[in-house]
Amino acid sequence: MSASKRAVVLLSGGLDSAVALADALHNGYECGALAVRYGQRHAAELKAARRVAHSLGVPFKVVRIDLRAVGGSALTDRIDVPKGRSPRDMERGIPVTYVPARNTIFLALALGYAETIGAADIFIGVNALDYSGYPDCRPEYIAAFEAAANLAVKAAVEGRARFQIHAPLIDMTKAEIVRRGLELKVDLSLTHSCYDPDADGFACGRCDACLLRKKGFAEAGAPDPTQYAERE
Amino acid sequence: MSASKRAVVLLSGGLDSAVALADALHNGYECGALAVRYGQRHAAELKAARRVAHSLGVPFKVVRIDLRAVGGSALTDRIDVPKGRSPRDMERGIPVTYVPARNTIFLALALGYAETIGAADIFIGVNALDYSGYPDCRPEYIAAFEAAANLAVKAAVEGRARFQIHAPLIDMTKAEIVRRGLELKVDLSLTHSCYDPDADGFACGRCDACLLRKKGFAEAGAPDPTQYAERE
Repeated sequence: MSASKRAVVLLSGGLDSAVALADALHNGYECGALAVRYGQRHAAELKAARRVAHSLGVPFKVVRIDLRAVGGSALTDRIDVPKGRSPRDMERGIPVTYVPARNTIFLALALGYAETIGAADIFIGVNALDYSGYPDCRPEYIAAFEAAANLAVKAAVEGRARFQIHAPLIDMTKAEIVRRGLELKVDLSLTHSCYDPDADGFACGRCDACLLRKKGFAEAGAPDPTQYAERE
Repeated sequence: MSASKRAVVLLSGGLDSAVALADALHNGYECGALAVRYGQRHAAELKAARRVAHSLGVPFKVVRIDLRAVGGSALTDRIDVPKGRSPRDMERGIPVTYVPARNTIFLALALGYAETIGAADIFIGVNALDYSGYPDCRPEYIAAFEAAANLAVKAAVEGRARFQIHAPLIDMTKAEIVRRGLELKVDLSLTHSCYDPDADGFACGRCDACLLRKKGFAEAGAPDPTQYAERE
């Protein structure tokens, strides 16, 4: 395979990034998975990311970064994760689980890693349809980051590469993502979506991420393989 | 002071970012200094950053990130730092001290921090004239990142802020930066530029950063306060 078909895939351990990775592999990319340990309150998603990469036979790398120093989110700070919100609530403004500049930080790290391993393609599992209202999940943001990336890095400036940020799920509903994952034979039971799992890693079933995930499986007419906490 | 006059200043401990911080203060910004500990081989520059922030009475924050996992640079890996290069050599291509996507990663972190503390302005001491040929120090890159930033973050998308990336030194020669620093009464002896200091933190005097710094003081007609290693 030519070096130009190498890709870095940002892997969070969730449903979306697992399907994005499978999509990249399906399209013939030789993939390296990059996960970011950013001081999140639980490690369940990183474990899931490692399981997913392993199950798809892809090398897995973790970058550690202490985003608690940056602060400002229920995912890194001691702020309560909201529970039981309706899809309409989720559309109404950006929730406290928003991590300031998270995708910009993640894409910047992926860009550095891509340049190091000679990849010109980056996959990110963002989704602008069934999502929590984060601004850095929208197509116009992805396009703007791609433009900046091509001015930032040596390989692009020297004309050896043209970086492309792929967001293959950006226009898909959660149900379509579930179907695509099943079609690509991703073991979705390995993925983890919950923002607030219990000590054993079981999903709460009530945060935005759990609710969107449940809705996705239900609308796809597929059994939900998630292990939820009993007292949900 | 209004919240809209808050700024985050990326502080590396070098000459340029110290002068950029002084410039931001001079222009009336209430500043927070952000340094990034990115697995560099020496801690001398972080100590310098802390000294500079303290001397200018500015709060100082460090984000830790392990860029060795990303790799690909003499500043993070075990690659020899080049010595004794002429200005013409430096213009001829990007050296091994280039850290993949470094300014993109730093600006992304500054953006997250800015959003958290309610700042809409970010200062970075990049310089496109007397520099080592890094692509992410050019004005077109800075403008592209600014455009992406304004699509990425909650405060901008909700119309509460318009992020601006300030690079006040971008068109200045090293001599002009030295003069500006002296004019703003920055204690330049607190700054550290060397890529390869000895165990006591003394500058090597021969890497690109040392050579540019020496040239800057010489051309500014100012005494160089740098402590160089004796056997230089």
